[in-house]
Amino acid sequence: MDFRSDTFTKPTPAMLEAMLNAPVGDDVFSEDPSVNELEARMSALFDMEAALYCPSGTMSNQVAIKVHTRPGDEVICSSLAHVYIYEGGGIAFNAGAQVRPLEGDRGMIAAADVEAAINPDDVHKARTTLVCLENTSNRGGGCCYDWEEIEKIRAVCDANNLQLHLDGARLFNALLATGQTAAQYGKTFDSISVCLNKGLGCPMGSVLLGSKAFIKEARRVRKKFGGGMRQAGYMAATGIYALEQHVDRLADDHAHAKMIAAALLEQTFVGHMLPVETNILIFEVHGGWTPVKFRDYLEREGIRVMAISPTQVRMVLHLDITPEMVEKTIGVIRTMA
Amino acid sequence: MDFRSDTFTKPTPAMLEAMLNAPVGDDVFSEDPSVNELEARMSALFDMEAALYCPSGTMSNQVAIKVHTRPGDEVICSSLAHVYIYEGGGIAFNAGAQVRPLEGDRGMIAAADVEAAINPDDVHKARTTLVCLENTSNRGGGCCYDWEEIEKIRAVCDANNLQLHLDGARLFNALLATGQTAAQYGKTFDSISVCLNKGLGCPMGSVLLGSKAFIKEARRVRKKFGGGMRQAGYMAATGIYALEQHVDRLADDHAHAKMIAAALLEQTFVGHMLPVETNILIFEVHGGWTPVKFRDYLEREGIRVMAISPTQVRMVLHLDITPEMVEKTIGVIRTMA
Amino acid sequence: MDFRSDTFTKPTPAMLEAMLNAPVGDDVFSEDPSVNELEARMSALFDMEAALYCPSGTMSNQVAIKVHTRPGDEVICSSLAHVYIYEGGGIAFNAGAQVRPLEGDRGMIAAADVEAAINPDDVHKARTTLVCLENTSNRGGGCCYDWEEIEKIRAVCDANNLQLHLDGARLFNALLATGQTAAQYGKTFDSISVCLNKGLGCPMGSVLLGSKAFIKEARRVRKKFGGGMRQAGYMAATGIYALEQHVDRLADDHAHAKMIAAALLEQTFVGHMLPVETNILIFEVHGGWTPVKFRDYLEREGIRVMAISPTQVRMVLHLDITPEMVEKTIGVIRTMA
Amino acid sequence: MDFRSDTFTKPTPAMLEAMLNAPVGDDVFSEDPSVNELEARMSALFDMEAALYCPSGTMSNQVAIKVHTRPGDEVICSSLAHVYIYEGGGIAFNAGAQVRPLEGDRGMIAAADVEAAINPDDVHKARTTLVCLENTSNRGGGCCYDWEEIEKIRAVCDANNLQLHLDGARLFNALLATGQTAAQYGKTFDSISVCLNKGLGCPMGSVLLGSKAFIKEARRVRKKFGGGMRQAGYMAATGIYALEQHVDRLADDHAHAKMIAAALLEQTFVGHMLPVETNILIFEVHGGWTPVKFRDYLEREGIRVMAISPTQVRMVLHLDITPEMVEKTIGVIRTMA
Repeated sequence: MDFRSDTFTKPTPAMLEAMLNAPVGDDVFSEDPSVNELEARMSALFDMEAALYCPSGTMSNQVAIKVHTRPGDEVICSSLAHVYIYEGGGIAFNAGAQVRPLEGDRGMIAAADVEAAINPDDVHKARTTLVCLENTSNRGGGCCYDWEEIEKIRAVCDANNLQLHLDGARLFNALLATGQTAAQYGKTFDSISVCLNKGLGCPMGSVLLGSKAFIKEARRVRKKFGGGMRQAGYMAATGIYALEQHVDRLADDHAHAKMIAAALLEQTFVGHMLPVETNILIFEVHGGWTPVKFRDYLEREGIRVMAISPTQVRMVLHLDITPEMVEKTIGVIRTMA
Repeated sequence: MDFRSDTFTKPTPAMLEAMLNAPVGDDVFSEDPSVNELEARMSALFDMEAALYCPSGTMSNQVAIKVHTRPGDEVICSSLAHVYIYEGGGIAFNAGAQVRPLEGDRGMIAAADVEAAINPDDVHKARTTLVCLENTSNRGGGCCYDWEEIEKIRAVCDANNLQLHLDGARLFNALLATGQTAAQYGKTFDSISVCLNKGLGCPMGSVLLGSKAFIKEARRVRKKFGGGMRQAGYMAATGIYALEQHVDRLADDHAHAKMIAAALLEQTFVGHMLPVETNILIFEVHGGWTPVKFRDYLEREGIRVMAISPTQVRMVLHLDITPEMVEKTIGVIRTMA
Repeated sequence: MDFRSDTFTKPTPAMLEAMLNAPVGDDVFSEDPSVNELEARMSALFDMEAALYCPSGTMSNQVAIKVHTRPGDEVICSSLAHVYIYEGGGIAFNAGAQVRPLEGDRGMIAAADVEAAINPDDVHKARTTLVCLENTSNRGGGCCYDWEEIEKIRAVCDANNLQLHLDGARLFNALLATGQTAAQYGKTFDSISVCLNKGLGCPMGSVLLGSKAFIKEARRVRKKFGGGMRQAGYMAATGIYALEQHVDRLADDHAHAKMIAAALLEQTFVGHMLPVETNILIFEVHGGWTPVKFRDYLEREGIRVMAISPTQVRMVLHLDITPEMVEKTIGVIRTMA
Repeated sequence: MDFRSDTFTKPTPAMLEAMLNAPVGDDVFSEDPSVNELEARMSALFDMEAALYCPSGTMSNQVAIKVHTRPGDEVICSSLAHVYIYEGGGIAFNAGAQVRPLEGDRGMIAAADVEAAINPDDVHKARTTLVCLENTSNRGGGCCYDWEEIEKIRAVCDANNLQLHLDGARLFNALLATGQTAAQYGKTFDSISVCLNKGLGCPMGSVLLGSKAFIKEARRVRKKFGGGMRQAGYMAATGIYALEQHVDRLADDHAHAKMIAAALLEQTFVGHMLPVETNILIFEVHGGWTPVKFRDYLEREGIRVMAISPTQVRMVLHLDITPEMVEKTIGVIRTMA
């Protein structure tokens, strides 16, 4: 029972079957039918002009940021944004761009703060050109933006000639929780990256979406990083399968998360828990427990969780966690004190 | 019959079976057993300390060059090197390093020219820190370095404190043609990248080899590029299979290349052909033919080749080209005039 | 009367005389006697091995940061640091490094916060390699670090293998205010940049200090930026003059700053003022005044100040501001309401 | 008598007088009257929209290349270009761009070769965006482009959407030798850098010319490098003086170069000499001499020259070399055998 991350999921037999039967070709020459189909389906779903299959969500994000910026530009995002704190300093490394991290709320930033952070046109200042949002917010416990705030941020970007990128690693979780459509996101953002290997359960891969001109440039940058693969269709085929079969079932993960949250909050040793909006739980432990002790205790029970800070534990629900496992986990939690 | 490149190969049923049955885990956490096994096997084969699985040969090369250099350094390689002319300017883009291309012979450079190209310690000059060889040389028609020349280049590097990287995209072809062992290469180079998706016939992937310290850094750079994948073991498993089953059979490709070469050279319209040492043919066409006309003619016969310059055609042999296909191709060539 | 910045000072006749009589040579070949003498004097004063003359403080800082880091590294500094907010995003642009801005107090950061901000050794995280302090802190109203805090930060750096750079644009003001010696700073920091064109009153220039190996690398980076100048000795000679004649007189600027501060604080329309420790005043204006209105009013009286934020005015004392000008300025302030 | 480079010149008393009397201000705020006047005069002379004063010709070139390119782009220039071989790898370091060096003739490249070197629109290839010429060509012995070839290169650039930059470190020498006007160059190039510290005899400095939009960006990049200086007017004033007084006198240097060349060619130990078109002599020495021996011999006679390769000596004429010195040097040469 691995609650460390939804990146640990393994394909179902049916997904493996789809993988095995995938028609493939050389994607560096854009001749892989499965990759092409995945890209076409994602474009259609999000009502965006073009798409690009990448080996990881980090690459999708880094390619997008590189295409949107020039070295010395400034990128506004949350101080908890994955692109800022979990991609190895990639914004500076790959794009030579500077980050202006905003404090925000659980990894979400407000339009007013974005507006206040835009630099004036002055040689002393980095030029602000890009805003990155993350929805759901991983480090914010899987929380979801209010759609109205996103629309306000879009308006700030329009008024200030900024691009707006979405790290949608877990965007399908947000769509499910808040009710917007993929197409609404497609119309609002200049680019979106969506991971296939988290809640969707694929072995690997991410899709970057944008305009035709943007994706043409993105394809060049992907090549420079070495992200152009050959018969990538085996992996892309799992994405096609997941889009058909694994989107609706995210509701189960959300329900499971709430069940485990309820069990945890019954325990006196569980402290502050971030609101559980989707499939992630982040909470503090007290009363003799530390995150590491808590993790090690559960590991002996066959349950793996992650100690993500000196005070916080993270648990993530996904398709390899069955209702029985949830029940068993709750049982174990109830034995702790 | 696709002779455009050995990147177009598709897995055999047995390789697909190996893929399907691969044990997998999250490779970003170094928990994928198939990736770990592939890395361990390659390390052992080359007698190098450590290995890193990457989505492509371009990434293996780019990661290596990044780790070996600092921005402003100078990299010596052939003017025909893949890392210089086919990786999107990646040496400058990713590493901020400058290339000093040497004219060389069919993509191979000589120790004396390397030595002469090393910059003195002078603020006006970029600091020379890295030499990159490519063996076999793709743009040189699959030609192979003399082992003695490589040893001389190693000595020049030692004497001048330079690192030595090998783009071994088709290294197994060279080993077969010239008789060295993988371990000899492992002892001689600071880093080696080996492609799995060319002659070895895997859908994708490459392995980078080096010291433990080098690979630790390489793992960081791979993450920044977004080359860290999750259940990459499905793809890595094809590499393990290929190491067992597809190395020796490269001899067939070499034999086929020589047979087609002989047939071509009988034709008066075939001009200069680069010596055929492994699985690649590069030749000029004359007498009313241009590379594009030649390509289009063969395409109507179900045979795909590549026009790689205004005067040259390239054909590449690989495991999807059977003896029957070779025979048929030779038959078609003999009908041309 | 220009209180906008101490960068606006013009040389005295005696400084111009020193400039005119400077022996010069080609500094790119290290043959300029005046540059060499300035570098030697600064090295001796700070008891550091070597020094490098640069056209500006921004270049001194950027060169230092570049030499101390590799792309993808993380730099810890205050969110108000000049290197972060007033150098055009240079840390990302030039060094490809990511900034981890700490909130701090008036641009000064605490050892405990530095320690908490160091990233673990994890591929997801940028590698923390450098801490930058600024003393005095420009955006903090010219405030000075407690020496004990600097020593604690040094200890954190030692324990975590971090380099420690000082942006000492106004370091002589800090030395005067707090009583440490230049040599104490030289022993504590890995590199220090000191501006000649602020309180010291030179037309241009900055000196970067460090070990011999560091300065050798810095000389290379300076050349790549195009900061190697030829007969730079005319400018360097003003620095030699200033070291002899303009250091002690900084005390006058500090005294003048306190006198103007006192006059301002008598006025009801002056709000929060940052503690005046050296030659800079930063204060809020209220009661019908905005920074822009306040600035424009004074400008009509022949007094120039700077509106540095929607609520704050900055005034900076320097050697072109005489006691008579201070008196007159106080007189004007007293007429305002 | 220093023939090593025209960078070694020292100001005349009249130039020093101009320096001393220069009106100055803070150029980072564009308030230095002398800098502004120099920029205005150069813009007018070259009939280009705007100009930017920089501390060195290397910075002018590097700023221009940075503004014209994005990382991963390819720059076409001669394999002997100063921007490629004498600026510390700056094109890669600062701009992340890759160089495609053309063999050319004495540092000059042909339109047909430029055209052939342009990469197709293909993800494997770096995007060609910029061509850099150098006129006169330093490493080519001060040779000058045929104007017709420059016009053909301009046409190739227009047809292929490439920018065209001129490293005009010694452009005034070329104008004098070939008869074009500055305005002809201004109309033909997208950007031009002109050095003040070579034949013009200023202590330091260079001017970059281009469109208003280009120079606005260039000003930003200059700031990031730390090339924004304060009371730079002292140095800029020497440029204004040189434009008035030192342009026509370059004819003397050219005449002197030819006189010394004639004397050298009388000697049997002088081998191949590059054609002497302006103020530079590059020649081989034989018959028991090596460049180093030759240099050391002359040094004992009070004459300094430069050994620039294992076979070549360079001598450069400039305003510190009087007719008497030329005569004396010729006398010494005639005593050698």
